[in-house]
Amino acid sequence: MNDLFLKACHRQPVERTPVWFMRQAGRYMAEYQAIRRKHSILDVCKTPALAAEVTLQPIQRFKLDAAIIFADILLPLQAMGLNLEFVEGKGPVIDNPIRGEMGIVELRAVDGEAFGYAGEAIRQALEALDNRVPLIGFAGAPFTLASYAIEGGSSRDYARTKQLMFSQPTVWHQLLSKLSAVVIEYLRVQSRAGAQAIQLFDSWVGCLSPADYEEYVLPHVQSIISALRVEGIPIIYFGTGTTGLLPLMRKAGSDVMGVDWRVRLDDGWNLVGHDVAIQGNLDPMVLFSSEKEIERRVRGIMQQAAGRPGHIFNLGHGILPTTPLHSVEFAIDCVRRFSQDESAAI
Amino acid sequence: MNDLFLKACHRQPVERTPVWFMRQAGRYMAEYQAIRRKHSILDVCKTPALAAEVTLQPIQRFKLDAAIIFADILLPLQAMGLNLEFVEGKGPVIDNPIRGEMGIVELRAVDGEAFGYAGEAIRQALEALDNRVPLIGFAGAPFTLASYAIEGGSSRDYARTKQLMFSQPTVWHQLLSKLSAVVIEYLRVQSRAGAQAIQLFDSWVGCLSPADYEEYVLPHVQSIISALRVEGIPIIYFGTGTTGLLPLMRKAGSDVMGVDWRVRLDDGWNLVGHDVAIQGNLDPMVLFSSEKEIERRVRGIMQQAAGRPGHIFNLGHGILPTTPLHSVEFAIDCVRRFSQDESAAI
Repeated sequence: MNDLFLKACHRQPVERTPVWFMRQAGRYMAEYQAIRRKHSILDVCKTPALAAEVTLQPIQRFKLDAAIIFADILLPLQAMGLNLEFVEGKGPVIDNPIRGEMGIVELRAVDGEAFGYAGEAIRQALEALDNRVPLIGFAGAPFTLASYAIEGGSSRDYARTKQLMFSQPTVWHQLLSKLSAVVIEYLRVQSRAGAQAIQLFDSWVGCLSPADYEEYVLPHVQSIISALRVEGIPIIYFGTGTTGLLPLMRKAGSDVMGVDWRVRLDDGWNLVGHDVAIQGNLDPMVLFSSEKEIERRVRGIMQQAAGRPGHIFNLGHGILPTTPLHSVEFAIDCVRRFSQDESAAI
Repeated sequence: MNDLFLKACHRQPVERTPVWFMRQAGRYMAEYQAIRRKHSILDVCKTPALAAEVTLQPIQRFKLDAAIIFADILLPLQAMGLNLEFVEGKGPVIDNPIRGEMGIVELRAVDGEAFGYAGEAIRQALEALDNRVPLIGFAGAPFTLASYAIEGGSSRDYARTKQLMFSQPTVWHQLLSKLSAVVIEYLRVQSRAGAQAIQLFDSWVGCLSPADYEEYVLPHVQSIISALRVEGIPIIYFGTGTTGLLPLMRKAGSDVMGVDWRVRLDDGWNLVGHDVAIQGNLDPMVLFSSEKEIERRVRGIMQQAAGRPGHIFNLGHGILPTTPLHSVEFAIDCVRRFSQDESAAI
């Protein structure tokens, strides 16, 4: 198996920088659109054969060094009793969001059995991958899950979420504990089905102050990561807009920190320390520009990471639905071209 | 006149930390709602007597140390030929957004005459203020204006904006030059009508990488600030989500840097250097929590700023429409209570 990605997660020297893209299985691919014309997002997530098929699509088309299971970060919320739907042009919508303590009490504390489909999807994807590249499992991190559960969808200012956090801290911690327990179950299912790494998506945690992150979020992410340590697979922790949070997020204990383009990759790595691997950080919007521009920016990131093992090339956030295919291919080629052979140097 | 705010802008010792709140004239006040039931936002902005009246409302109710003229950051776009409307629940909408080079060529390069109403609003507000507190004028900064002009409204990922920036840098710079020239005219009108300070709102610039900010935005903000230097009044430069951009934003040359809650006030001040004043940075959502919590957080910010002149207390972004009035009053009281008399210490 191509183990560049796993080696980089462990900061072992690699002959070439591994590359994968968040949301690499998605709407920018015609193959994915063809599936989605017949099936909803949730159907694809919960039908292992479809999830596995979609997971493989980008692997078959591009020279990627890791696959990521097709799923959605909000699936644990559905299992807990929230009505999750995906509305065209609006994204995820929850029509029975949490409003106060009662809603939290009523959330179901499900165990791994609720996620049988996720384990089966991982198994089928692994079989189809046939040891070409490692398979990443994932889940939403508790703050980001809580924000959707409380706001009922995406948000600009996270008003209700922060209101609960600031006004009822005990209730907030109850909610995050409950979410964290289910996230652990969900990720454990994926790990035990054979996922070779897992990523925690804390996409919207960057809306918090460092002090609030430390008090209201960090302990829960720490508990998830420490519970999953026994699984023995690398854990990636990712968020956007987190420049000021990075030193604290590092304390969550992941093996890899995902950073977005709002911080230079080398500055971000300095902020989290070089005893952790780093993943990132091309602005997905760059894939809409010329080859010359893509090349210039990929080279810049590769130069910032050079001379130290432990860099996984990725975007700074998910690939956008209208991204041109040829730009994805070209960016991957650039990463391969600008890769330094660290194993030779050491 | 209460000159605490102006003294703090110049980093002169003050006997008490000045405080004002972004969007302090707004929907959370019944007096404002009463006006808005009869007049649209744009009517209020463009009718000097109404703009002045609304500007004074928070000054009459709270012990604030500065007034800010009631206006909208997007007024320059309207003057340049874009159809600006405010749609309930959606915010600003522009139905003829800029799509490429032609749209930029067609933008009108207006001079100060287009902003006669703004000068008159300042004059009337000054008369009504009767030297109680200084009056701040303001405008959107060119990146933030461009994002609205291109996206046609608010945005989550600034896809079209970045597409223009990354793919047609020459055209991008043309647009920002044109916007900057009009912003200079608009702010000059406000200054010459008597505004005692001005603030540039670069609310959404935090979506950029440091390198992109430096190349595509900074030179234009520098040109605005240097053109306004002759006015001889302090200039505040503010954005949100800018933790990673602060050292570069400092190079724009303002007298005061506005920071949001995503960075500790003392860390932010270290990042921009202590040769500039700092404004901020309470999360506006804190005003929805208990008095105890508001007090704890105001005290924290005041402690971070203590021992050095040049702190203006503010929120980290505009006050939210549903903010309880008593929380605003209470937060202002806390600032007064926790203020140290620096003039005595020096």
